[in-house]
Amino acid sequence: MNQSNTSFLADFRSMSSIGATAGGGVDRQAATVADGQTRNWFRGLVEGQGFTVRYDQIGNQYSMLELVPGAPWIAVGSHLDSQPLGGRFDGAYGVLAGAHAAQRIQDSFAVAKDSAVFNIVVINWFNEEGCRFKPSMMGSSVYTGKIPASQALDTTDPDGVTVREALEGIGTIGDFELPVSAYIEIHIEQGRSLEDRGLGIGLVESTWGANKYEFIVHGDQAHTGATIIADRQDALLGASALVVAAREIALEYSTDEHMVITSCGEFNVFPNSPVVVASRVNLLVDVRSTDPDVLAAADAALHTRVSQIEKMANVRIERGAEHVWDAKSYDLAGLKLAAEAADSLGLSHGVVRTLAGHDSTNMKDVVPTIMLFVPSVEGISHNERELTHDADMVAGVDLLTEVLTRVVRGEFVSDSATTNRASTDSVSVSR
Amino acid sequence: MNQSNTSFLADFRSMSSIGATAGGGVDRQAATVADGQTRNWFRGLVEGQGFTVRYDQIGNQYSMLELVPGAPWIAVGSHLDSQPLGGRFDGAYGVLAGAHAAQRIQDSFAVAKDSAVFNIVVINWFNEEGCRFKPSMMGSSVYTGKIPASQALDTTDPDGVTVREALEGIGTIGDFELPVSAYIEIHIEQGRSLEDRGLGIGLVESTWGANKYEFIVHGDQAHTGATIIADRQDALLGASALVVAAREIALEYSTDEHMVITSCGEFNVFPNSPVVVASRVNLLVDVRSTDPDVLAAADAALHTRVSQIEKMANVRIERGAEHVWDAKSYDLAGLKLAAEAADSLGLSHGVVRTLAGHDSTNMKDVVPTIMLFVPSVEGISHNERELTHDADMVAGVDLLTEVLTRVVRGEFVSDSATTNRASTDSVSVSR
Repeated sequence: MNQSNTSFLADFRSMSSIGATAGGGVDRQAATVADGQTRNWFRGLVEGQGFTVRYDQIGNQYSMLELVPGAPWIAVGSHLDSQPLGGRFDGAYGVLAGAHAAQRIQDSFAVAKDSAVFNIVVINWFNEEGCRFKPSMMGSSVYTGKIPASQALDTTDPDGVTVREALEGIGTIGDFELPVSAYIEIHIEQGRSLEDRGLGIGLVESTWGANKYEFIVHGDQAHTGATIIADRQDALLGASALVVAAREIALEYSTDEHMVITSCGEFNVFPNSPVVVASRVNLLVDVRSTDPDVLAAADAALHTRVSQIEKMANVRIERGAEHVWDAKSYDLAGLKLAAEAADSLGLSHGVVRTLAGHDSTNMKDVVPTIMLFVPSVEGISHNERELTHDADMVAGVDLLTEVLTRVVRGEFVSDSATTNRASTDSVSVSR
Repeated sequence: MNQSNTSFLADFRSMSSIGATAGGGVDRQAATVADGQTRNWFRGLVEGQGFTVRYDQIGNQYSMLELVPGAPWIAVGSHLDSQPLGGRFDGAYGVLAGAHAAQRIQDSFAVAKDSAVFNIVVINWFNEEGCRFKPSMMGSSVYTGKIPASQALDTTDPDGVTVREALEGIGTIGDFELPVSAYIEIHIEQGRSLEDRGLGIGLVESTWGANKYEFIVHGDQAHTGATIIADRQDALLGASALVVAAREIALEYSTDEHMVITSCGEFNVFPNSPVVVASRVNLLVDVRSTDPDVLAAADAALHTRVSQIEKMANVRIERGAEHVWDAKSYDLAGLKLAAEAADSLGLSHGVVRTLAGHDSTNMKDVVPTIMLFVPSVEGISHNERELTHDADMVAGVDLLTEVLTRVVRGEFVSDSATTNRASTDSVSVSR
């Protein structure tokens, strides 16, 4: 293994010690002390290499390496925040890989400086995970104009702390702004299609379509030990039936060609006391598919089931916030560039879709974007046992370096085509 | 309305202001600041009337009125703690009614002192509700020897605070001990059988049988946005299916003669993040019936469903703590005495069963016990809208006074038959 790979792995292990959990993972939820420590560790790492670090209004962290003074910027990035009891690789791998790729390019361009037409900024997006503060992908959503900064900053965690207060608390908020011309992200797959197919690299062709809903099930608080069944309006029963219905819909609407995946990850019961019939449950349900028609059919079935459950459990089910995105393709020229770069390095690769959302899901709607995956062992993610082998990590850094080299040379986008924010075509809806 | 009724209602309104909630209820969970304030308010109230107040090792509060120096004791009681967002009447009514009944007897016995053969202690049992610290009926369970005091004192709330620390924090713990010869409790019905039958008083004949279980559903944490259905071990799906199954069993196993009631009041999801398949859910499920055979059949069905759900959701379901009590009768002589007392006051009454557990459920296993109900409007309980009309409350105090008068005269138990703790015949099981 060469020296730059050894250096990457050493930095990765050091980074993984911040917010480390007993089970081998990390807990670095957005704007917590551990997230702040990781951000400052990363800042120290890149400032030592000559990068300049700034923060924007929503706490996105920009580490800039200026190769060509005054030239426009290519962004490479991901996120350093994690799930509670999350894995070491999700997001953090991509940010560190970006810094190492940029550093390697700086070293090589020191010899052949005139071939660069762009500068490089490594972006650590704020709050990709969305567990402490909802929604997920908050930093890139604000950057791309999908959510107003003021709305994001006023969002509170379960203790009532706002994003603004939390970011000020860890001192990583500012007023910096930077338009970029293209975006590149590398991430662990978090699924096992690469492993199953024996491939080292995934070239992401498109996102799945996803409809995400918050439901509020309204019942009536009562004594479990004194209220007969006929008199109950049990919010927990209604919410539980909705979780079961979501799974049944996934099984029923999946076809050989197009899978439907439904999930419920958050489920809060009030007042949640042993002898009390629940008055309210708030839960999040999402429906995803690779095909828009299949997704629409599954979504309609979910809403039919909601009405049936209201009658069965004698409850009222309110639909709160929703967040919808269509299945959407990444840039085809970027896919081709990445495939050629992988071939030039002799890396096995294949085309994949991403079921999960990433910051690139937002960025691809406003600038040409390339998304790369490295394999996850057994597809395990959002889990302390999440694992990507060293060899796969360093192959990913090699590929990212090669792709980024080609992009800063102007082989992907021209240096006159810089955009910043999406003005139209936003597919995010909140109410 | 006579002066003693006016005085009772004034005291009741004053007591209801402690821990009052915006919705007209109270939040006085066990050993919280509000519970401590209520205990001290009650202490002040009765000390002003000549009672002596002491605390035992588990924080049960004894307010003693000595009518006959050296004579054995009759206990009357209930509990001052409440559910979160609970009603003003549940428990608190019975404690205050006991103090007023004792006071009225003191006033009348001042004239005819030689007719008393017992003294009176009003007991405010610690932690009847069991929401902050499990299990419910903790104080009376320790008093009756069903739970070791050390185990109860080491129990922690969700923040890791022990019962011992919490009781010391509000200063209502001691080492007092008092054997009693009989127990009387008055409580709101929390159901609507009295209201439906147009009765003013319920004479409780027996408890329902109840099997209460803690289940721990074990799944595997994963990313909702990247893990296909076939790879999921979704603890939330398993737990939700169990909630739905419990309701189905209640509907299936209820007969015209014997109702089955199943409930789930507490349901905690880990890690409970929007994009994470749950690794674990802890939930409480209980099954109750008036008939032991019907209860056994429903219980067996529940356990069959548990096995089926393990396969369906690809999870493992562990059975944690359990708490089982048989349908059991109250003292028949006590039922007769209470009926005669009600008749003497011209109060309409009928025999009822209690679906809910009460401290009398424990006490009836160790001493002769009488349990009385007053009506609850629409049967609403464990809810801020819980209501018992003033007229029903004061009728209950009148009846309690009459019953207690007869009991302290030796019409229920003899003054040589004092018992304290159960040595055998405990129906409580924990593992």
